[in-house]
Amino acid sequence: MKKINLKEKFSKFTDQWSPKVIEEMNDYQFKLVKIKDDFTWHKHDETDEAFFVIEGNIGIEFEDETIELNEGEMIVVPKGTKHKPYARKEAKIMLFEPKETNNTGDIINELTAENDQWI
Amino acid sequence: MKKINLKEKFSKFTDQWSPKVIEEMNDYQFKLVKIKDDFTWHKHDETDEAFFVIEGNIGIEFEDETIELNEGEMIVVPKGTKHKPYARKEAKIMLFEPKETNNTGDIINELTAENDQWI
Repeated sequence: MKKINLKEKFSKFTDQWSPKVIEEMNDYQFKLVKIKDDFTWHKHDETDEAFFVIEGNIGIEFEDETIELNEGEMIVVPKGTKHKPYARKEAKIMLFEPKETNNTGDIINELTAENDQWI
Repeated sequence: MKKINLKEKFSKFTDQWSPKVIEEMNDYQFKLVKIKDDFTWHKHDETDEAFFVIEGNIGIEFEDETIELNEGEMIVVPKGTKHKPYARKEAKIMLFEPKETNNTGDIINELTAENDQWI
């Protein structure tokens, strides 16, 4: 058991849209990811997904609205909900989701990242 | 679906050691809690428990060590592990744990809070 400093973990990687696992809890994982520009539209049919903005600003497009989030804000995207995250400048976010959750959900493309990358 | 601002949610209550639910994800809940002085020794036999320090500094005593956490740091306490959180000055923390998790775990005393208090 050891504590985790989020800033220190963010300093360990530079690639974008490629979630890094920092800790597990039961069957879930906390992941850090740096994002910039547009992700791909996707959904997770099996699970909700939590987003926390640690640094910067992001937006998440949904089919009927766009929600912008600033540092210190979070949102839970319900399972089955199509969404497309984006960031105009690089932003640092934390995700919380079950182990084995694929970053691009039901879509496989060039943005699909390797799972279970620990830092 | 709506975003949640942690600071705004912390402004909605003043009591200590009484977790407030801000969001759910699958069968889990995100909870905010203000803490000061010492909590009670307890454990959660059924689940791990995640602590995030949002503002201030806290410590968690374990049977064989004490871990201090500052703003921007987190820890996951494994299920079955006896622990006693404390804060010398009031600190603001976020917990993540399954719904129905009792704040004092296997102990019932004057610090046991009502569950499922939403703000």
